[in-house]
Amino acid sequence: MATHRFDPNFTDNVINSMGPKTSPRLRQLMTGLIKHVHDFARENELTVDEWMAGVKLLNWAGQMSDDKRNEGQLVCDVIGLESLVDEITFTLADEAKDAPTATAILGPFFRADTPYRENGADIVVTKPKDGEMAFMHGRVMDFETKTPLVGATVEVWQASTNGLYEQQDENQVEFNLRGKFKTDADGRYYFYCLRPTPYPVPDDGPAGRMLQLMDRHPFRPAHIHIIATHDGYRPLTTQIFDRKDKYLDNDSVFAVKDSLVVDFVERKDDPQAGLELNYDVKLVADAK
Amino acid sequence: MATHRFDPNFTDNVINSMGPKTSPRLRQLMTGLIKHVHDFARENELTVDEWMAGVKLLNWAGQMSDDKRNEGQLVCDVIGLESLVDEITFTLADEAKDAPTATAILGPFFRADTPYRENGADIVVTKPKDGEMAFMHGRVMDFETKTPLVGATVEVWQASTNGLYEQQDENQVEFNLRGKFKTDADGRYYFYCLRPTPYPVPDDGPAGRMLQLMDRHPFRPAHIHIIATHDGYRPLTTQIFDRKDKYLDNDSVFAVKDSLVVDFVERKDDPQAGLELNYDVKLVADAK
Repeated sequence: MATHRFDPNFTDNVINSMGPKTSPRLRQLMTGLIKHVHDFARENELTVDEWMAGVKLLNWAGQMSDDKRNEGQLVCDVIGLESLVDEITFTLADEAKDAPTATAILGPFFRADTPYRENGADIVVTKPKDGEMAFMHGRVMDFETKTPLVGATVEVWQASTNGLYEQQDENQVEFNLRGKFKTDADGRYYFYCLRPTPYPVPDDGPAGRMLQLMDRHPFRPAHIHIIATHDGYRPLTTQIFDRKDKYLDNDSVFAVKDSLVVDFVERKDDPQAGLELNYDVKLVADAK
Repeated sequence: MATHRFDPNFTDNVINSMGPKTSPRLRQLMTGLIKHVHDFARENELTVDEWMAGVKLLNWAGQMSDDKRNEGQLVCDVIGLESLVDEITFTLADEAKDAPTATAILGPFFRADTPYRENGADIVVTKPKDGEMAFMHGRVMDFETKTPLVGATVEVWQASTNGLYEQQDENQVEFNLRGKFKTDADGRYYFYCLRPTPYPVPDDGPAGRMLQLMDRHPFRPAHIHIIATHDGYRPLTTQIFDRKDKYLDNDSVFAVKDSLVVDFVERKDDPQAGLELNYDVKLVADAK
């Protein structure tokens, strides 16, 4: 029942224009999307000028996007949508089980072509002057049995201390601060990286404009991205956050979860790193 | 109160991240947008893959858009959003008065740099072989007093019989099938044009992909776009539709209103046109 003073049949007309060959899931999603978009417009009495400002912003996002940057994704991130669909997706996947390692968003700086490195390698190929070196290590294991998983892939990526990922920064060599590692016979992975530092999401485009209009800062708390995979297990995408970071409670893209907060501790007698981080990854076996 | 099984504080956290310097209207719009987008995602359990498909579609829309094409606008049009914000905007403007000439959407093919032509001119500069010529004429008048308005501007544009506007078609000369006219001392405008024909909206981009997925046709009923302006009056943007068109009841962008349907009638003794259309435009004076 319409409780507004606009054409009461309009939204149903648009929804009912879908033909019989529409897939059931697409029909569900488009029905929900059309209802919410129309309700949003009516409830807030959205004007033509305001709508057109939104269209321009979304077109701008597409125009800034290429294989190294996904601004449409970032626009969603600053209103929490990627974190929300991440929660939904993994809630659905996990409902039959206890919670394994919590998940977090992929973010726009993942690269599909990251190479493997040997365990013990240093991913900090281009060294920033102000970086703190850390030795990160841990095991990949089966969530239920705690059995170590041999030959699992752990992929990591992080920004440098200037807040830039390598594909954003011509002064970093390609694949700097990222790598894939295979767990050894004990299920272990280990490598040298930077203690992560907070950085602003790119704010020279529509996402930055939205943050500015909403009087919000663009910073993300310091974090390392992780994807872990093993045959027969569900892939895990997550981020881990430094407990000492000042943006932990107000991440500009809303990705922090308590269980993903980690502690860097002092490491002694290693000339390569003064800090250490132990982080075990638990994977859930595919449904039989 | 949350009636779902996801983080019950998430949406409020995102909304409450807006700082104190956010403008009140932007705060209202972003609050409504974030609520509806999050509710849409939760109610339909939107997955990461589905969301990413949407991001790719929106980025694609931006990448296709330039000064001659606005694909983001067309994506909104096929889910009725432009027609809805048009209704909202003019409902708000008209609530103190009886309804003047109904409005309709601008559409993506308006050009801001359309030149003036003399009354009596023929806007069909590039003649299609299968076009039916029409003489369109009428008066611009004050909605309340019915006084003719002298020196009002009537701007029109239409597609050719191949379904293309001049900026889409290298075989049409620039500004073909569009022009601006000034009303004469009796408030009259008149010119020669084509009887409009139905055409599909461009379906080689994301809007076309959406229509295909929703099992919908891309056709718009035959129409002529009109913008009428005069100092001291509210500008009017509208479209008029040919009553004989077979797509009148299922316009792909939902712009048809009953009061905008017109009749082309036979015109005798004019070697330039066998059809005639009389259409008066009523403008509402600005609030004093």
